[in-house]
Amino acid sequence: MVADITDIFAEVQKKKPLVHQMTNYVTVNDCANITICAGGSPVMSDAKEDVEDMVSIASALVLNIGTLNSRTNESMILAGKTANELNIPVILDPVGVGATRFRTKTAEDILDSVRISVIKGNAGEIGILAGSGGVVKGVDSISGSDNAEETVKALSRATDAIIGMTGKTDYVSDGKTVYILNNGDNYLETVSGTGCMVSSVVGCYVGAYGVSADSVAAAISVFNIAGEIAAMTAKGPGSFKTKLFDSMYNLTTADINDRVKIGT
Amino acid sequence: MVADITDIFAEVQKKKPLVHQMTNYVTVNDCANITICAGGSPVMSDAKEDVEDMVSIASALVLNIGTLNSRTNESMILAGKTANELNIPVILDPVGVGATRFRTKTAEDILDSVRISVIKGNAGEIGILAGSGGVVKGVDSISGSDNAEETVKALSRATDAIIGMTGKTDYVSDGKTVYILNNGDNYLETVSGTGCMVSSVVGCYVGAYGVSADSVAAAISVFNIAGEIAAMTAKGPGSFKTKLFDSMYNLTTADINDRVKIGT
Amino acid sequence: MVADITDIFAEVQKKKPLVHQMTNYVTVNDCANITICAGGSPVMSDAKEDVEDMVSIASALVLNIGTLNSRTNESMILAGKTANELNIPVILDPVGVGATRFRTKTAEDILDSVRISVIKGNAGEIGILAGSGGVVKGVDSISGSDNAEETVKALSRATDAIIGMTGKTDYVSDGKTVYILNNGDNYLETVSGTGCMVSSVVGCYVGAYGVSADSVAAAISVFNIAGEIAAMTAKGPGSFKTKLFDSMYNLTTADINDRVKIGT
Repeated sequence: MVADITDIFAEVQKKKPLVHQMTNYVTVNDCANITICAGGSPVMSDAKEDVEDMVSIASALVLNIGTLNSRTNESMILAGKTANELNIPVILDPVGVGATRFRTKTAEDILDSVRISVIKGNAGEIGILAGSGGVVKGVDSISGSDNAEETVKALSRATDAIIGMTGKTDYVSDGKTVYILNNGDNYLETVSGTGCMVSSVVGCYVGAYGVSADSVAAAISVFNIAGEIAAMTAKGPGSFKTKLFDSMYNLTTADINDRVKIGT
Repeated sequence: MVADITDIFAEVQKKKPLVHQMTNYVTVNDCANITICAGGSPVMSDAKEDVEDMVSIASALVLNIGTLNSRTNESMILAGKTANELNIPVILDPVGVGATRFRTKTAEDILDSVRISVIKGNAGEIGILAGSGGVVKGVDSISGSDNAEETVKALSRATDAIIGMTGKTDYVSDGKTVYILNNGDNYLETVSGTGCMVSSVVGCYVGAYGVSADSVAAAISVFNIAGEIAAMTAKGPGSFKTKLFDSMYNLTTADINDRVKIGT
Repeated sequence: MVADITDIFAEVQKKKPLVHQMTNYVTVNDCANITICAGGSPVMSDAKEDVEDMVSIASALVLNIGTLNSRTNESMILAGKTANELNIPVILDPVGVGATRFRTKTAEDILDSVRISVIKGNAGEIGILAGSGGVVKGVDSISGSDNAEETVKALSRATDAIIGMTGKTDYVSDGKTVYILNNGDNYLETVSGTGCMVSSVVGCYVGAYGVSADSVAAAISVFNIAGEIAAMTAKGPGSFKTKLFDSMYNLTTADINDRVKIGT
């Protein structure tokens, strides 16, 4: 990376960014708690009467379409436009895009109406948005594009957003460089909402350090490293999740330096 | 049982059924996670624009009326009708039926509009639906019918659904046979949403093995056995819940064979 | 205090009050579970068709404006008015009041339409409602009024409600006396929703023992003592939260007597 990941990490702890999150009701509690453990401050609000005021005091806005409805869709676009006016970065997590027409249309509507700084999705979702192949079943990626590096680069160029594509290996691109990230643990797939939590952490990192492939790669890697540490003593998905919050909160620069695997 | 419970258990692990769940916002996260731990794949979606597409790729649909509103009621009936057309089994959890007129009316509306394959409720809820006595306070059963076996059998005949009635002892009936299940632990009553989680597991089992009293009895018993194992080292409701996910995920056929108590 | 805190504690365990909670979708599961661990029985319901029936069987109603929308606002006022008619105490948690105009207006609407028995908020929120200074960012208190004791006393007189103001030190007033509470642990600030959970516990205590500064002070102190015990073996926010439920559930009168710090 251009920047040092531990500098980015330190900046998040110092600034304690307020991250406004409009997300699904399945994983919203975990998103709030991982935000705190990552060093940020969460606020969840999705009423159209509330979101303009709320986003205006935030350092970043996360839009997660995990459990959509027409009321919150309208609020998301309103909040996104306000964020754009105020130059507050917007992160989109297109949960389940491609699995249903409504989710695909909603993601397109948001991308048409709001300038998105970061798109964070699984391989199926990113492949679908890139038009380069991808299958999503429910909210899980079944398969992505054959060429991951080209896919993230192409989607970044098409949308002018940083792309973070998560899976066994994660890929982050700003349209020029592609970072290849190899941290994480299989336990992360046994807990609902770890993908949503990554987006919350990306919100913290982009909110504190600015929009760049470095910020996004740092956020994903730090979360995955916390997952590796949690997995060391987990006895199943329940204890893994508890320990994930603990390890995220207790993470040190030494942990990061010892474990980080970011290549190009 | 007609079938071997461990064969049903193995089938769920093999098929990894996608279970579409329209449920309450109180316990939805636990429902998603227990689905994963049970061997299934959860998807939560309740927008009327989304549910027809989503249910059509699912192996089962769970309708839980824990926190109703007019928007989601409409979506539930729409999803249920679509499931009926596609022969996808529908599980109804009539949370709090009898406690308020709105809940009673909603359960009736769903039963009138949608062909339900399984009704899973506590003793008060099932007693009320059967018209054979039952008191529900809030969402808890205060008392059920005097004759549990007759109640589940009669409700099964009246609705043509498999009935699963949970409590200290659980009763499952297809209108002919009644299975009497004696697994479980008192800790299960100290955690909000264990009843909802059972319905999610029933969704997995019915989705993978088909609609039968055997599938429903297997689902309830497996969940209760996981509860027994979790209780062995729990220090309170918080650690019990964490361990419940762990034990559900780690459950083996040996655990099931050692502990299962299903009679007639 | 006038009453003995352990008598109030015992009364909650004996009566097992049903507490109807209309709350946000971020922390609702934790609110339900802490209610059980505190000795009460939770029911969450926010449909306008449902709330009148539901509140009428409850011992207390908690209104928490953490994630508002126009649908649930209407329901809250309807439920609150029904509670007033039936002399069921209403607890208001004005989450994020002052941070946005919509939250401020909603809190004012509720206070204008419903007779509130207890207002429980952080220092920023209470300061804002009292008109005596206070800053709220998102849902967190940045600063409260300079004179905490005068603030809670004045707000109590202005609203005729018991005021519970939480922070490092908690203040409870009935307009005459001010109780100063010094239990708690820093870990409580690392978990989203501990403030909401306090309101749920206040609902239990007021529901079982009646509306008084003693009930509110007892509820806050008992929750904070559970937090102290949880913190003794916690390894981070994840394990702290798990242990908080355990310690609340296992709390004894001896624990309370050994630790309680309530002065005037």
